[in-house]
Amino acid sequence: MQTPQQLHQRYQQVRKLSEQICSPLAVEDYQIQAIIETSPPKWHLAHVSWFFETFLLKPHHKDYQVFHPQYEMLFNSYYETVGALHPRPKRGLLARPTIDEIYAYRHAVDEAMEAFFDVLENCPDEKLLFFIELGLNHEQQHQELLLMDIKYNFSVNPLKPAYRNDLANHRIDTTSVLQWHEQEAGLYEIGDSSNNFAYDNESPRHRHYLADFSLANRLVTNGEYLAFMEDKGYQRSELWLADGWQKNEQQPLYWQQDGQDYLEMTLGGLRALNPDEPVCHISYYEADAYARWAGKRLPTEAEIEVVLADKAIVGNFFDQDILHPQAAGADGQWYGDLWAWTSTAYHPYPGFKPLEGSAGEYNGKFMCNQMVLRGGCCVTSQDHMRASYRNFFYPHDRWQFSGIRLADK
Amino acid sequence: MQTPQQLHQRYQQVRKLSEQICSPLAVEDYQIQAIIETSPPKWHLAHVSWFFETFLLKPHHKDYQVFHPQYEMLFNSYYETVGALHPRPKRGLLARPTIDEIYAYRHAVDEAMEAFFDVLENCPDEKLLFFIELGLNHEQQHQELLLMDIKYNFSVNPLKPAYRNDLANHRIDTTSVLQWHEQEAGLYEIGDSSNNFAYDNESPRHRHYLADFSLANRLVTNGEYLAFMEDKGYQRSELWLADGWQKNEQQPLYWQQDGQDYLEMTLGGLRALNPDEPVCHISYYEADAYARWAGKRLPTEAEIEVVLADKAIVGNFFDQDILHPQAAGADGQWYGDLWAWTSTAYHPYPGFKPLEGSAGEYNGKFMCNQMVLRGGCCVTSQDHMRASYRNFFYPHDRWQFSGIRLADK
Amino acid sequence: MQTPQQLHQRYQQVRKLSEQICSPLAVEDYQIQAIIETSPPKWHLAHVSWFFETFLLKPHHKDYQVFHPQYEMLFNSYYETVGALHPRPKRGLLARPTIDEIYAYRHAVDEAMEAFFDVLENCPDEKLLFFIELGLNHEQQHQELLLMDIKYNFSVNPLKPAYRNDLANHRIDTTSVLQWHEQEAGLYEIGDSSNNFAYDNESPRHRHYLADFSLANRLVTNGEYLAFMEDKGYQRSELWLADGWQKNEQQPLYWQQDGQDYLEMTLGGLRALNPDEPVCHISYYEADAYARWAGKRLPTEAEIEVVLADKAIVGNFFDQDILHPQAAGADGQWYGDLWAWTSTAYHPYPGFKPLEGSAGEYNGKFMCNQMVLRGGCCVTSQDHMRASYRNFFYPHDRWQFSGIRLADK
Amino acid sequence: MQTPQQLHQRYQQVRKLSEQICSPLAVEDYQIQAIIETSPPKWHLAHVSWFFETFLLKPHHKDYQVFHPQYEMLFNSYYETVGALHPRPKRGLLARPTIDEIYAYRHAVDEAMEAFFDVLENCPDEKLLFFIELGLNHEQQHQELLLMDIKYNFSVNPLKPAYRNDLANHRIDTTSVLQWHEQEAGLYEIGDSSNNFAYDNESPRHRHYLADFSLANRLVTNGEYLAFMEDKGYQRSELWLADGWQKNEQQPLYWQQDGQDYLEMTLGGLRALNPDEPVCHISYYEADAYARWAGKRLPTEAEIEVVLADKAIVGNFFDQDILHPQAAGADGQWYGDLWAWTSTAYHPYPGFKPLEGSAGEYNGKFMCNQMVLRGGCCVTSQDHMRASYRNFFYPHDRWQFSGIRLADK
Repeated sequence: MQTPQQLHQRYQQVRKLSEQICSPLAVEDYQIQAIIETSPPKWHLAHVSWFFETFLLKPHHKDYQVFHPQYEMLFNSYYETVGALHPRPKRGLLARPTIDEIYAYRHAVDEAMEAFFDVLENCPDEKLLFFIELGLNHEQQHQELLLMDIKYNFSVNPLKPAYRNDLANHRIDTTSVLQWHEQEAGLYEIGDSSNNFAYDNESPRHRHYLADFSLANRLVTNGEYLAFMEDKGYQRSELWLADGWQKNEQQPLYWQQDGQDYLEMTLGGLRALNPDEPVCHISYYEADAYARWAGKRLPTEAEIEVVLADKAIVGNFFDQDILHPQAAGADGQWYGDLWAWTSTAYHPYPGFKPLEGSAGEYNGKFMCNQMVLRGGCCVTSQDHMRASYRNFFYPHDRWQFSGIRLADK
Repeated sequence: MQTPQQLHQRYQQVRKLSEQICSPLAVEDYQIQAIIETSPPKWHLAHVSWFFETFLLKPHHKDYQVFHPQYEMLFNSYYETVGALHPRPKRGLLARPTIDEIYAYRHAVDEAMEAFFDVLENCPDEKLLFFIELGLNHEQQHQELLLMDIKYNFSVNPLKPAYRNDLANHRIDTTSVLQWHEQEAGLYEIGDSSNNFAYDNESPRHRHYLADFSLANRLVTNGEYLAFMEDKGYQRSELWLADGWQKNEQQPLYWQQDGQDYLEMTLGGLRALNPDEPVCHISYYEADAYARWAGKRLPTEAEIEVVLADKAIVGNFFDQDILHPQAAGADGQWYGDLWAWTSTAYHPYPGFKPLEGSAGEYNGKFMCNQMVLRGGCCVTSQDHMRASYRNFFYPHDRWQFSGIRLADK
Repeated sequence: MQTPQQLHQRYQQVRKLSEQICSPLAVEDYQIQAIIETSPPKWHLAHVSWFFETFLLKPHHKDYQVFHPQYEMLFNSYYETVGALHPRPKRGLLARPTIDEIYAYRHAVDEAMEAFFDVLENCPDEKLLFFIELGLNHEQQHQELLLMDIKYNFSVNPLKPAYRNDLANHRIDTTSVLQWHEQEAGLYEIGDSSNNFAYDNESPRHRHYLADFSLANRLVTNGEYLAFMEDKGYQRSELWLADGWQKNEQQPLYWQQDGQDYLEMTLGGLRALNPDEPVCHISYYEADAYARWAGKRLPTEAEIEVVLADKAIVGNFFDQDILHPQAAGADGQWYGDLWAWTSTAYHPYPGFKPLEGSAGEYNGKFMCNQMVLRGGCCVTSQDHMRASYRNFFYPHDRWQFSGIRLADK
Repeated sequence: MQTPQQLHQRYQQVRKLSEQICSPLAVEDYQIQAIIETSPPKWHLAHVSWFFETFLLKPHHKDYQVFHPQYEMLFNSYYETVGALHPRPKRGLLARPTIDEIYAYRHAVDEAMEAFFDVLENCPDEKLLFFIELGLNHEQQHQELLLMDIKYNFSVNPLKPAYRNDLANHRIDTTSVLQWHEQEAGLYEIGDSSNNFAYDNESPRHRHYLADFSLANRLVTNGEYLAFMEDKGYQRSELWLADGWQKNEQQPLYWQQDGQDYLEMTLGGLRALNPDEPVCHISYYEADAYARWAGKRLPTEAEIEVVLADKAIVGNFFDQDILHPQAAGADGQWYGDLWAWTSTAYHPYPGFKPLEGSAGEYNGKFMCNQMVLRGGCCVTSQDHMRASYRNFFYPHDRWQFSGIRLADK
């Protein structure tokens, strides 16, 4: 658990980062919601502030004056127990409040939080500190969503604009040969066991039996995926889950054919596809079909966690400022680059207890119909990652930075 | 026909007015497409420039350099013969070009048009002058659409912002008693007969037999419409066309209940409903049901034209800067305030010939499934109006400034 | 007006014919509703009986015992003022009542009607006799719908079954050369003027001015329509109404390619397309596009009525037992074969008054969004036809026996 | 493994039973597909015969003459590798083949299978015998589907017909008090371990760690579920998974309010709801919300299997001819009555290998987005049940005989 002082500093860093992420955007870019699953950048900026206002300032900060009476409804994402919600599909229609008004809202919340930290530093309250930490982790998740959503929004524009033209590019020229990590069978424990922050869905730590298995030390590359496509992988029903076959996808989300070759939309604009980089923005169905074609399978979430628990949390994260997956080096890829689809449906761990009150809606109510992904990606902040972290998306979702890590046995 | 010099001056006025209409907008407001039928204000601004670029500058202006190669596709509304089109439902997703870029596009077109006028003033070409006049009338139509679309976009925002707080308000306190204009039966001529500009759909002028009829000298008011509602007009199937009954509307588009009373969304924001003002933003189905309930009927387009042809073109137009229908004075309401639904389906006049080439797509291809409206409204420019003018919308459309004028016999 | 005795005899004939039309059906065939627009044959059989029960027996026949309390709801088509309706899209889910029960219902109604005729023959009541005549005309319309719907139902079955294998086939080998009937301009009267039965929508007879025009003496043939297709008629946007272009049809409803040739689904099963027969089962959009391609236009309903009024009501009707349009002979085709699309939207005639009470829902409430067709077809009973008859369908409808008659000038 | 002789006898029994299940149906009832998820009874009867024809007779029976060339396509359910399929949503439109033709098809297949058994009894082929057993288990699954689908089809008919009026009714008057089976933590094995037939999805048997848990000895009753409803269970968002909350259900599928009370649609028609009988035809979302409200949880599939493995396979099955769940007696309810929703998403067991060839499509490709249910129900044949049996439905599905068994700890 962090001290109030540490948390205060972290608050300032995290809040600032959200605005930095948005700084390359034109006012118009803040407004777009290209599909229901995404939100306009301005909405993200307001919603993460709403979180602090709703769960900390309003109930716990003496004399706090609500910034605007309708923001509670406008910027509530999915907390039914908080009250009415503006319908998700209509977030892109909110021209007002303007982005200037939203920044004013952010700054009013930040100012009130400064005063609130003064109180907490004198008189720490563990529960409130936890909520602040939850709010910061929440904002870090939305930083990742911001970049995913911006990428999607830019991709549907025929002009194919770049979000940034100055991205770092530590490109490793060639992907290293895939190596298999071998793990013995046994009764393992998974779930959070640290004293640090973790979401409720990572608890309780519990026993889980695993047969022996092998896990790839890197992600599947574009070149390997092209071989699947050339072998008519998208046309062979026997490789596909029934629900995936119905989707009738023909290539990863951001690829577009260019004569014999492929271009790929990135946060740096449209680029030639690099066969050594990991294949990204694929659905669970595509990941699963590829694994079946390759004679392998997708790992379970427990298998990945057990292996990751022994690895250092290093890799291609947001902090590298590349914002695109990179070819694996000699040490493989364990964290970062792309969230790896697992074959495990998102479910409560045995004995799971959601947080009390409205915060209990944070995770638990989504434990159905989604699949777990593990390991973080190139738009995840490094200090947001841990071995027990469970991300989750619907099997058909493709706009997140998802990739394929194979397992065997 | 106007001289090149007159047209040149008119060009400058009309082009400037579009920008004036948008001047109260925030950048964010330019971006919104709240329903498929509407377009973002920025798209309107670009499209009307596209019209001059596509039909005049590109084919007829020597050395004209295309402003941007993809704008032809992005800002083509529905001219299939011009080439590919950006899909209409996705206009609101075009964050780029930004509004600054769109103004740059407008100004580049205007600059090239200045040079083009220099040529034309020396060497007038009647066909090109006609196309300029068409482009200006086209832009005037889009000025009306801009205000309709802005009103709709603002109305879906729970904050109910006002487009302008400084609108003129020459409110006449009480609606005058309805009087009936009596017209004798006879073989009339309808359609354009002037030497001035008119759309192709107003020609050819042709004979049309009318039995004798009466036409109301003013529009139906909110108060009269409330009586229909209080008499369960929306619940009585016998008053409704079958297709309208399916729509299951319960009140005019912009009304919202406020205890016992009603508020109405206007371009000046949410206001108490004024019972003396004409009821507006109703569908053809609502207009028709009201007329049936009142024991009257809607007029045909020929009936309205025959009567309007003898009236001065004065009334509550855009030029009055009220931007909302007003109570009728002692002289009634013949032009302006609200487009009156007619019972006539939009169809080609006998012997109708569309314009040649892509301009032939302007009107003719919409002559199915829509109903004609007549008389102009409070967001129509006065110098855009004439007795033979045919506006048209789908029977279920409600976001245009539409109202009810009754006929009898 | 027919005497009670004449009507009695006609009642027996019409009621028997409905059952004869269904006699080739298997029990399973009675059950199918392949699209929302159609109804299962068993539903038609019940609904036409419901009409007599609801509008005559229940209100006017002393001591009549309702056959089944829920039939009023189950077999009400669209009479909102009668009461609740079983939803139209779910008619095909009514396995019960069985077809045997529905025939029992028919026969119970017939028996009660026999007794009712006894009363009427002694004591004629003009209003009731009119309602019986309306019910018989209603049943004749449903006989036509039965054959349209059966054809559609059979066509969606990959086995392409034939409704009948014993249809008459007086095929005329070659279509005669098209001749143009010339009509002078003038102030005509249209609408019903007889003393015989006509629907309310054919009244009142009224004056209508027509410019001079030419009308084709026969329908457009498959061979002529193939020329349109070979000239890329379906791919050229400039030939199409905007709403039709969206439909993206590629050939008439019942055509299917067979190598270089076409097969056509008919009530006699799948057959080689005969180029001399009239093209059928096309939408208004297709008819309109063809006419534009051919440099002609579709006629208005008034134009057709004025010409038909002077022609004998002979042609290829249901009575010929061919149930498919035939090549035109030397005298042309004026009635029968196919309903000709007109360019007139279905609207009330000036001074139109619908029937009183629920029967007023018969026609009037459909006077929006549909187009008028004229002249009858090969599944219309000859004694159901007259010059003033107005049929109507939505412009996109294709399952009715519709064709193209050209006009010029 | 059964001998060819045993299997031959079983073939005759199973095949006969399908026809017995359909014997109360009218021809019309065979035709209905009330929702996409269901199939018309006639389609089921043909499809199970298709299975034997496609997987045994065509490839392995010398001289077998295909019954009808188009049946391969018409009655293929979802075997993409076999070839083209008639679209699932259109099964209800196949009036032809008639039910008589489908019985002729069944009997032709049975006749050929008789000859095939003659060969096999002389010369047993283990692989073919396995396929026959698979075909019989397949047909038993469809027997259950037949009854589920018939129930649904009858329920949408406003006449609420009964499938049978002569159902057995061994009603136990009062549900016994719920008792908790306590199970110790440990490393268990789950999955099929018998020498008898089991589906591929029940293998391989594998180790699975379970913490200690309690399992209810009977299902949740209607009375208990009513208490949840009276406590506003359907209106309290905090009880619901997010995807379930969207569905906005208000009561179990087959309940309908009747004043203060409820009626329930059953295979014996509409009946008063019996509070002692288990609540049935609920979605996973409803089961999960109920468990949360009750302060318990749904069991995992492993938990149920471990407990069931020690219980005798007795209970209220199809064989009891009640076809509705019954109140639990003093010994509780372990098998039969209703399939219990588990909290386990349907997934491949570690090391899962689907059957080779097209039969591999039987189970594996559905291992996504569905939840496992366990224990069989009142329309499952007793000899079709075993502890390792995995049934699966989408979380929103309600037309199967599903219920709630609680777990704790």
